[in-house]
Amino acid sequence: MLSEFSLIDRFFARRAAANRSSAAEGIPLGIGDDCALLTPRAGEMLAISTDMLVEGRHFFADIDPEALGHKALAVNLSDLAAMGAQPLAFMLAFSLPKADEAWLAGFSEGLFALAERYGCELIGGDTTGGPLNLCITVFGSVPPQTALRRDAAQPGDDIWISGTLGDARAGLGVQRGEWTANANDAAMFRHALERPEPRIALGLALRGIAHAALDLSDGLAGDLLHILERSSMRASVDVDAVPRSAALRRLAPDIQQRCTLAGGDDYELCFTAPSAARAAVQAAAQKASVPVTRIGTIAALASPADRPAIAWRNAAGAPLTVTLQGFDHFHAE
Amino acid sequence: MLSEFSLIDRFFARRAAANRSSAAEGIPLGIGDDCALLTPRAGEMLAISTDMLVEGRHFFADIDPEALGHKALAVNLSDLAAMGAQPLAFMLAFSLPKADEAWLAGFSEGLFALAERYGCELIGGDTTGGPLNLCITVFGSVPPQTALRRDAAQPGDDIWISGTLGDARAGLGVQRGEWTANANDAAMFRHALERPEPRIALGLALRGIAHAALDLSDGLAGDLLHILERSSMRASVDVDAVPRSAALRRLAPDIQQRCTLAGGDDYELCFTAPSAARAAVQAAAQKASVPVTRIGTIAALASPADRPAIAWRNAAGAPLTVTLQGFDHFHAE
Repeated sequence: MLSEFSLIDRFFARRAAANRSSAAEGIPLGIGDDCALLTPRAGEMLAISTDMLVEGRHFFADIDPEALGHKALAVNLSDLAAMGAQPLAFMLAFSLPKADEAWLAGFSEGLFALAERYGCELIGGDTTGGPLNLCITVFGSVPPQTALRRDAAQPGDDIWISGTLGDARAGLGVQRGEWTANANDAAMFRHALERPEPRIALGLALRGIAHAALDLSDGLAGDLLHILERSSMRASVDVDAVPRSAALRRLAPDIQQRCTLAGGDDYELCFTAPSAARAAVQAAAQKASVPVTRIGTIAALASPADRPAIAWRNAAGAPLTVTLQGFDHFHAE
Repeated sequence: MLSEFSLIDRFFARRAAANRSSAAEGIPLGIGDDCALLTPRAGEMLAISTDMLVEGRHFFADIDPEALGHKALAVNLSDLAAMGAQPLAFMLAFSLPKADEAWLAGFSEGLFALAERYGCELIGGDTTGGPLNLCITVFGSVPPQTALRRDAAQPGDDIWISGTLGDARAGLGVQRGEWTANANDAAMFRHALERPEPRIALGLALRGIAHAALDLSDGLAGDLLHILERSSMRASVDVDAVPRSAALRRLAPDIQQRCTLAGGDDYELCFTAPSAARAAVQAAAQKASVPVTRIGTIAALASPADRPAIAWRNAAGAPLTVTLQGFDHFHAE
């Protein structure tokens, strides 16, 4: 548990304790015992997700620790958003080469600023020496019938995307020297890479409206396929409709396509909903203050031998051959 | 989630899926979505704990991967035992330098053999490349009024220990060359170090009988102090009563004391219970097939200025000065 070093107490346990009065509903016991105790809201279930972030693979060694604190929790909250779950609490385990006070101050600030914004309480964890590794497990509450699962896409569903895709990958490319951008665009890309905003409000607003959903962490091409495989469906996607920022549209077309379709680290929601629900989807997006864009359609498999797959086309409806790998974080492209 | 590599699917997701029919009560959704979905038993709470294990700090690089799979889950289940919680499920996140098939086969075998014995289902996780790091988050179910918390010790309570203490630390000392033992004793010590058995049955049997409890991971001297601090109590402990194996008693007396009081990695339960409950404690221990030993007594603080502390004495009641640090895993002794 989080008691091995006084610095840990100072930067994590005390702040968590200070937050308890406002967030303690459903959390009878937080940091300091062998286990935390947690209950979902009455009649609801706990939605649980874990992500592990490793230096050099998920972030660069020189990342601002405050940005890292934000991102480590944001990518986990994004999984709750994709489930339509309300954040409740999280556990934080990490290994650190040394207990660096300035680093811990920045990291904990970024972490708690996001946690407090979503009423998500730190309820325990573990700390140890070792190569830098961050493992967060996040807990949310969701009613049984409205959880947004990957296996719920239906024939005829529209496919929707929140926000814009590809900016984080564009930022990674600028950092790596794969391409260049003007200073403003580069700053925006970097913000997208380091400061993703979990789409919690949108996930909640889509309860009872969307059929299937997931968050885009590994790139649209690979992630949408997860919905298709779990739902045993096919998809047709208009690549020209995939939403791009003005900054991304200033990069070369092949880079735009690579960033939007296989970029990864977007943490936008990809979801399906019946075409009769278009007005309801737009109302949910407005309520959550996040733009959403319709990019394609779900179809049933043509035969038992047919495989889940994405048919890519352009705005004119002409088929395109797109061969892209999902984003295996920093390494496998 | 656990889908990045086919080896992961093969060694973890498939076996977890094969176990689902027997263990799916309370787990509407396991591996394969953005989140797992989990509910505690009706009227109960979820008990949650996370432990992170790092190579070189919590285990040696040459550890048998099957033993490591066992231990990584065992230390987490031990936290559930210390809470009196019934295991339900766990999440597994790990980083590995490379996807080594033989290593994954051994590790997953040790992990699942223990998980299946306790009906604890793998419901998700994360895998990535990186220095070897294992992070398990475990979930159990416990009724609100019978959770065995650290803050519930009462004046006059007996202090009890399950099993014997010090064998794991003795095994570490043999491996490090700090002392020697005969081959049989060395094998027993090594087994204690690598194959701790979580005291789940005892934790469940102590519901409604024990007041406070924790599991001994960092050594009796440091861990008992956690109960005292959380409960605002003092303790008197008879060091001669602390249970030792026959093998440990063959080591020098100062080594025995160091191993039993500050050894760590024991994963036995330390708990308090009213003296009127001695027969009930023994009956619970018999039901769980684990010996328990009474080693001391809880007392109220003498004044508001008094601090939680342990008064060590010998079997004759003479006070002893024992200066020991809790076990900071492999490094800080």
